[in-house]
Amino acid sequence: MSGLLTLRGMPADRLGDLLDSGQRYVDMIRAGVRAPSRLEGRTVTIVFFEPSTRTRLSFEKAAHALGATVMVFAPEMSSTVKGESFKDTILTLTAMGSDVLVIRHVLADAADLAALWSGVPIINAGAGRREHPTQTLIDALTLRQHFGALQGLRMGIVGDVDNSRVARGHLAALPTLGIELTLIGPSTLLPVANPWVARTTHSLDEALGDLDVVYLLRVQRERGAAAGLSSEASYNRRYGMTEERLSMLKPTSVIMHAGPINRGIEIDDSVADGERSLILEQVANGVPMRMAVLEAALGERE
Amino acid sequence: MSGLLTLRGMPADRLGDLLDSGQRYVDMIRAGVRAPSRLEGRTVTIVFFEPSTRTRLSFEKAAHALGATVMVFAPEMSSTVKGESFKDTILTLTAMGSDVLVIRHVLADAADLAALWSGVPIINAGAGRREHPTQTLIDALTLRQHFGALQGLRMGIVGDVDNSRVARGHLAALPTLGIELTLIGPSTLLPVANPWVARTTHSLDEALGDLDVVYLLRVQRERGAAAGLSSEASYNRRYGMTEERLSMLKPTSVIMHAGPINRGIEIDDSVADGERSLILEQVANGVPMRMAVLEAALGERE
Amino acid sequence: MSGLLTLRGMPADRLGDLLDSGQRYVDMIRAGVRAPSRLEGRTVTIVFFEPSTRTRLSFEKAAHALGATVMVFAPEMSSTVKGESFKDTILTLTAMGSDVLVIRHVLADAADLAALWSGVPIINAGAGRREHPTQTLIDALTLRQHFGALQGLRMGIVGDVDNSRVARGHLAALPTLGIELTLIGPSTLLPVANPWVARTTHSLDEALGDLDVVYLLRVQRERGAAAGLSSEASYNRRYGMTEERLSMLKPTSVIMHAGPINRGIEIDDSVADGERSLILEQVANGVPMRMAVLEAALGERE
Repeated sequence: MSGLLTLRGMPADRLGDLLDSGQRYVDMIRAGVRAPSRLEGRTVTIVFFEPSTRTRLSFEKAAHALGATVMVFAPEMSSTVKGESFKDTILTLTAMGSDVLVIRHVLADAADLAALWSGVPIINAGAGRREHPTQTLIDALTLRQHFGALQGLRMGIVGDVDNSRVARGHLAALPTLGIELTLIGPSTLLPVANPWVARTTHSLDEALGDLDVVYLLRVQRERGAAAGLSSEASYNRRYGMTEERLSMLKPTSVIMHAGPINRGIEIDDSVADGERSLILEQVANGVPMRMAVLEAALGERE
Repeated sequence: MSGLLTLRGMPADRLGDLLDSGQRYVDMIRAGVRAPSRLEGRTVTIVFFEPSTRTRLSFEKAAHALGATVMVFAPEMSSTVKGESFKDTILTLTAMGSDVLVIRHVLADAADLAALWSGVPIINAGAGRREHPTQTLIDALTLRQHFGALQGLRMGIVGDVDNSRVARGHLAALPTLGIELTLIGPSTLLPVANPWVARTTHSLDEALGDLDVVYLLRVQRERGAAAGLSSEASYNRRYGMTEERLSMLKPTSVIMHAGPINRGIEIDDSVADGERSLILEQVANGVPMRMAVLEAALGERE
Repeated sequence: MSGLLTLRGMPADRLGDLLDSGQRYVDMIRAGVRAPSRLEGRTVTIVFFEPSTRTRLSFEKAAHALGATVMVFAPEMSSTVKGESFKDTILTLTAMGSDVLVIRHVLADAADLAALWSGVPIINAGAGRREHPTQTLIDALTLRQHFGALQGLRMGIVGDVDNSRVARGHLAALPTLGIELTLIGPSTLLPVANPWVARTTHSLDEALGDLDVVYLLRVQRERGAAAGLSSEASYNRRYGMTEERLSMLKPTSVIMHAGPINRGIEIDDSVADGERSLILEQVANGVPMRMAVLEAALGERE
């Protein structure tokens, strides 16, 4: 295959294979078994034009766990200060012997462009607001572990859907896996057009009782996305996951968030740290799921 | 054990065991022998919220030398720009599969808080002005190598004791090892309260003749600590280790400094580079001593 | 040997040995053969006081490919914010157990100074505008691969020769290898004195027909070097490698550039990406050539 640019159009069996592979790595990690060094002698290059904690580190750890060499390109330590173009960065990193490029960029089509320019597989690690496919796979894996199966689960995605690459990745793939999606937020934060198989509502409180999963999106203060709301406090009043709202959920329902979380805004402290939260399970699945994605991207030459 | 948060209250035999273990790694490095890969398959995560050269790099090198995988989290490349809390950073890095967190932070209780939140051992790599325990162990090891034994040595700690995490670490452990401490500096830079077993004096010149070790603290210009003095030149005149002061010491006495040094302020060029200086021995002991600390922190699961 | 500070005065057979060694690593990489771990147990420390993409990453990759441990010291993550001197940084990194220091610095004599202070081999990875010796070796290797031999080749170096460490490295070594150099640019960008065996001309158009290699230098906008020209557009008109100028070259001639390139200024898009460009071959030779340099620098103790 040619890396992982998008989950759009990926059939359910292919998604299932990736999740199965991710689960095998989860099992190895839990058992304390070292993964086979399937990427020994290969170079995984991480090209991050936006800051990130967990995504960057978990790709690094995933690559190391498979025996790969890792190169990290981050703009603060780079020639971008000298004005090198994105294209030339991609061409250069490829020519230096990268076997796969893992790319995060503020532009939605960055990974697609890189795939045009570079002859090596590209993994989209978050491109603009278009998609964040590995996060979607991680979350699907987390739900499959928790519920056993995905078919028929009802997930509400709450908040700044319009600017969220996470939400858009979920819209691209979770319905294929049988998850019913509801987009929840004020009209200023929901997409104007809705080409997806998803309902929308402005009222979290009305939707809560039907949901198996409440997926909270980060209020992206640095993107000015909250501009549509009068204040963070008013966001919390209408869309924050409070203890009160938690009590309105079915007893089996769970809370998810891709992090980094804003405590007291989209999620209250006690909910984030509570037993209904799968947030740390999501984090824990990051490394093994990305091991599976790296292995799939580099598998052809094996 | 649960990492290394503080040396306060640590008994002499336990301190001695750590020093013995550090010395074994010193001997291996000098003999060109590779250390056994005791941390193979383990992940050491370095979480540095303050910049540092030698501490960060020497922990990295120590971890690599024991076969561990290293993750480095530094705020400039991280989600802290997105406002993630310290707590969530700790929870996330733990959930990603860290086996130990090595933490430097501007807050004095950062490492203690991390130990509350995280289930993995925490190593305090410098927290606020409270303590810098691995530096204290390194310095004790350096002195033991030089003098053969520690009991009865007289050390003067000169300068900004009040703001120094190094000084506070020394106060927490060196008396347990039999070292007599004298705190030397102007009243503006000495602690108001002195709960430790240590003398204080404002006159370096009067103290010099009795000391076996003159331990110079950095004038922390970026903390504005020198505000109590009219100028750096006047600091040098009263507390700087000049050639003249060097000649007032006993012939067996030595100079130490945890670095980075300010040449011409707390130490003159020729003293820093002279044969009485143990500064580079301190640096050289950094990696092996930290190997011992990492091994001790992760030893239980072995 | 004692690292690689300069190519000045290096005899042709020694240069040839380095190129031969680089070519052997090129062949291994192309054949998918792992290099022997000749630097196993050794520590390569990369000390970069200026930002760089390809140089830093390719040294890292070269060191890893030979089995070395890598330490990266870059000022943004370091104690230089605390005012540590360059000398103390060098002494400290050496004392920490570095077996070789790879140094980039804005000062022309940084690598030479480091060699005075440190007992370990120093590799000059670009010092001020004095020299960038590994880039020169990479380019010689690239030309030898393309033309089979170097003797008698005519290379024009175009642009800001006066401020270019690349040009000065080429002037130091390529004539020894039999390459005839012509320096091409406006008088404001050519060195006032010309102690080298090189012609100079202000007219690229007149020189083109005689050249086998057109070596384009980056317009170093961040150094204000283009100040001597009224605009970047006028630079492109007089010295840019356009399609039109490409057609004035001999059919066997090639284009080189050490990158990062400024598309549309010193080189047009179609030329940079065209088949006469050796730019990506230069990049590809970076890692293997630097493997050879690292091996030579650390060879004595083997």
